[in-house]
Amino acid sequence: MKIGLIGLGKMGYNLALNMMEHKHQIVAYDLDKNAVARLQNEGAEAAGSISEMVQKLDTPRIVWLMVPHGKPVENLIDQLMPMLSKGDIIIEAGNSHYKESIAHAERLESQGIHFFDVGTSGGMEGARHGACYMIGGDPEVFKTIEPVFRDTAVNKGYVYTGRAGSGHFAKMVHNGVEYGMMASIGEGFDILERSPFDFDFAEIARCWSNGSVIRGWLMELTESAFRADPRLKQIKGVMHSSGEGKWTVDEALDLGVPAPVIALSLMMRYRSEEDDTFNGKVVAALRNQFGGHAVDKA
Amino acid sequence: MKIGLIGLGKMGYNLALNMMEHKHQIVAYDLDKNAVARLQNEGAEAAGSISEMVQKLDTPRIVWLMVPHGKPVENLIDQLMPMLSKGDIIIEAGNSHYKESIAHAERLESQGIHFFDVGTSGGMEGARHGACYMIGGDPEVFKTIEPVFRDTAVNKGYVYTGRAGSGHFAKMVHNGVEYGMMASIGEGFDILERSPFDFDFAEIARCWSNGSVIRGWLMELTESAFRADPRLKQIKGVMHSSGEGKWTVDEALDLGVPAPVIALSLMMRYRSEEDDTFNGKVVAALRNQFGGHAVDKA
Amino acid sequence: MKIGLIGLGKMGYNLALNMMEHKHQIVAYDLDKNAVARLQNEGAEAAGSISEMVQKLDTPRIVWLMVPHGKPVENLIDQLMPMLSKGDIIIEAGNSHYKESIAHAERLESQGIHFFDVGTSGGMEGARHGACYMIGGDPEVFKTIEPVFRDTAVNKGYVYTGRAGSGHFAKMVHNGVEYGMMASIGEGFDILERSPFDFDFAEIARCWSNGSVIRGWLMELTESAFRADPRLKQIKGVMHSSGEGKWTVDEALDLGVPAPVIALSLMMRYRSEEDDTFNGKVVAALRNQFGGHAVDKA
Amino acid sequence: MKIGLIGLGKMGYNLALNMMEHKHQIVAYDLDKNAVARLQNEGAEAAGSISEMVQKLDTPRIVWLMVPHGKPVENLIDQLMPMLSKGDIIIEAGNSHYKESIAHAERLESQGIHFFDVGTSGGMEGARHGACYMIGGDPEVFKTIEPVFRDTAVNKGYVYTGRAGSGHFAKMVHNGVEYGMMASIGEGFDILERSPFDFDFAEIARCWSNGSVIRGWLMELTESAFRADPRLKQIKGVMHSSGEGKWTVDEALDLGVPAPVIALSLMMRYRSEEDDTFNGKVVAALRNQFGGHAVDKA
Repeated sequence: MKIGLIGLGKMGYNLALNMMEHKHQIVAYDLDKNAVARLQNEGAEAAGSISEMVQKLDTPRIVWLMVPHGKPVENLIDQLMPMLSKGDIIIEAGNSHYKESIAHAERLESQGIHFFDVGTSGGMEGARHGACYMIGGDPEVFKTIEPVFRDTAVNKGYVYTGRAGSGHFAKMVHNGVEYGMMASIGEGFDILERSPFDFDFAEIARCWSNGSVIRGWLMELTESAFRADPRLKQIKGVMHSSGEGKWTVDEALDLGVPAPVIALSLMMRYRSEEDDTFNGKVVAALRNQFGGHAVDKA
Repeated sequence: MKIGLIGLGKMGYNLALNMMEHKHQIVAYDLDKNAVARLQNEGAEAAGSISEMVQKLDTPRIVWLMVPHGKPVENLIDQLMPMLSKGDIIIEAGNSHYKESIAHAERLESQGIHFFDVGTSGGMEGARHGACYMIGGDPEVFKTIEPVFRDTAVNKGYVYTGRAGSGHFAKMVHNGVEYGMMASIGEGFDILERSPFDFDFAEIARCWSNGSVIRGWLMELTESAFRADPRLKQIKGVMHSSGEGKWTVDEALDLGVPAPVIALSLMMRYRSEEDDTFNGKVVAALRNQFGGHAVDKA
Repeated sequence: MKIGLIGLGKMGYNLALNMMEHKHQIVAYDLDKNAVARLQNEGAEAAGSISEMVQKLDTPRIVWLMVPHGKPVENLIDQLMPMLSKGDIIIEAGNSHYKESIAHAERLESQGIHFFDVGTSGGMEGARHGACYMIGGDPEVFKTIEPVFRDTAVNKGYVYTGRAGSGHFAKMVHNGVEYGMMASIGEGFDILERSPFDFDFAEIARCWSNGSVIRGWLMELTESAFRADPRLKQIKGVMHSSGEGKWTVDEALDLGVPAPVIALSLMMRYRSEEDDTFNGKVVAALRNQFGGHAVDKA
Repeated sequence: MKIGLIGLGKMGYNLALNMMEHKHQIVAYDLDKNAVARLQNEGAEAAGSISEMVQKLDTPRIVWLMVPHGKPVENLIDQLMPMLSKGDIIIEAGNSHYKESIAHAERLESQGIHFFDVGTSGGMEGARHGACYMIGGDPEVFKTIEPVFRDTAVNKGYVYTGRAGSGHFAKMVHNGVEYGMMASIGEGFDILERSPFDFDFAEIARCWSNGSVIRGWLMELTESAFRADPRLKQIKGVMHSSGEGKWTVDEALDLGVPAPVIALSLMMRYRSEEDDTFNGKVVAALRNQFGGHAVDKA
């Protein structure tokens, strides 16, 4: 298939290589001209502008967006709408909020343009050698674009999730589960680290990656991390977050679903970004007030 | 009543003054001779040793222990046992674990010595001007010592809780509730502090102390703390803990009772005692592994 | 002062009596004509419509809204705007989201109408005999309406919190703290209930209400509840919620403030509204899958 | 190697088949004579008593215990001690608490008998076709028994963890991590189930098992569970627990390590075992007391 790809960042660039390896043709556009040139060297067709990219596509055109959610996606859809025709397809494979995707779908469908929201998992490695996709949008039109997902996903690694919005919803929840799993692993190694034993963490993670109930990719990555830095002395325990975990908790609250584990995973990330807390100051001051307990001076 | 008091720390000294104000006679003993001398100046009878203290008491003797739990209580009971007689009474008003109190009661009752485990709340201020007691032990014998509790407690501020162990159990749970309440207040002011508004925290706490649903002593103390240091700039948010909160969570786990709020209150205290966490390092390393997300260097 | 009061529900009716007791004049309007008539019998002036109410007020007019948040408040402001003049005042004393209040304030201020968002705590009892107010809005105009707050609040029980929105923000957080405190108390009594002892809960709550660190109105209400039904056999443990707790957690998430205790208080409420959980089914199924652990049949 | 195996339950029986498949000789004993007979049919040597089993072993004897922790392990060690000689080896591969294992090791080492505590993961399937072992004990002696672990574990699926106790400690933490991961998955599917979309859970789990960040055995089992019962209608969401999760939280508390995710995973299991909660009754009663909010009648 011939695909117009906008966004050649960490994920997009690797996906393009993956697609081309599977004989798909890429017309690439990015604000970063060097990235476009590099991909051109790898066999892609370069576009100097979005309109040039659109002109180089066959109808029905397929445009794949791989850019940050929010304004960037919004702006691209604004620009693309007048250039595209009935029957054309926009695939939005970034990490957008599912409600934004529902809105995009409605706006585009009103002009006969098909919109697919695609949650993409697997990291850069997956983008390059086999991604994992959750895909929402029209079920009939999906069949026409299914080959590119089948080819670039790992075996069995894509799923059609339902109407527009469902792809990003599933991806959001996937990331929420990821937060909880990572926190579980983090807590586990913290307990090992404070134990009376002298565990070799890389060896533990290696063992847990083979045959245990908790084996999986995250545990394999844990092993890699400990191989590179056995006690993780080179990094700080600050856990940043990029949105989907919070969206999952927001959604759980809106739906009235108790999700304590995912919520706490997120909150401990927030906590890790603070050196000290006002919360703690209040509690310390209270202990001092009623019990005369000493406080640590700031 | 005439009471032998062992332990003239922050709580014991104030309680002694409180008892004497209500016409009870104190025979005081402490390893700190200065404390004994100071209390003697306030009207107490001084004892240079535990045996001297015992000799100065009338039978049935009443010995009130106000010392740290664990070994100190243990040792005192070991020393007192051979000096006391059938019908004598030991009141253990510190913060012992209820299982230790059950054990002490069994050992002492086997010699006919009555044991009361008394949880004491209200802080130093309460000890001086009106404490709050939760009292476990023999119900008939309790009546004979009830006056000293009635006199030194705030009005309606003591309760007979049942057999030995129940006093300290109730106090343990009281402290667990206290942890949860303090954490709630701490979180609330943390949200206020990070809000887009410029709240006067002392004024907010003053208002919440008068007429609100959450009014109570802790909120009054919150006001005091903010009056003394409006943004709590002089203290760090390190929340130490002294045991009962943990015991409450241990007990909840043993009983199979979900107690997430109290448990989290405790865990956030532990978290506040760490500058960085191994947990966080693991999660940060994992984010870097799969997504190439930057880590903060140590 | 002469005040137009819209909304004679549980809170509004009691507040009206409270205001009149303090010599304020009430012009009352409610969709429920019986409520209006009843209040008329108590000395209020009745209005058959909103415009009639507005006509009966002196300028600058003061209109006090005591209705459910969201649409009801919205609609009333829509209706009132054309009837009011520059310098008139709307006091919105319900439980609105602070962002709605900021929006109302902006809209009204653009026409020179002053808006105050007032968080009201203390329950029905407080509304009748001494409420607790958190008040946001213009500081100068506030002085002109301060008397009605001073008169109807409990002593020291009102606070000017800052610009519009801050009153409802403070009230929101107040309710979040309330959720956490109530959950703490609930967990504490759950542990007492499952303990090896036979506690008299009303007596424990009575004791904790007098002199303890955790004394306060909620503990007094706990005593009342246990006096009425010693083991709470007549009610189910379903904990409904009405919004502010969720808003507090939403806000904490938006601000990046960890608030695990308040969040868990809310989530356990959600959990209590379910008889069974899909979450639990998944975990039970997994235990069965890997370990052959028996599942409970539905 | 020739191994005396005591305990032919779900795990032990499968392990025995696994060992024999790898040319190890089994002398089997169990209170259930049928299980012994069945294993005899598969090629094991049967023992009618523990002493018979011991006699049939070559020195240094290797005895593998695969029985429930606590009393059963305790009793077997009591019985075996007088029958074994210096240099003999006991492998305890059940789910004992690590402190018990340390105690067993000390007792046995005092007689020159070597003790290994082995945490075994991977479920019945793993026991049969490739287990995962965490092994604590003497490092030199370990080399002599390493072949049986290498042969019956999945490739790379065993680790020597350090001195006695460390194997069960690592397994305990493994299970704590498992609790957190399972809870994360459970919460995720709960959110999907309550979403506005109509997800095919088996398909989602299939996709997440292939290429996603959260892929792993638990996700594969999730797919299996949904294949068998697409909405899990046949089972209740009651999540029982068998101890290690609680031990992990106990240990975290003792070490002062915050482990909110694992703790909450456990507490939600406890919650799932209750139809109603006293906690909830207290909170519902309080809401009624201060706000007149309706309660659900029992």
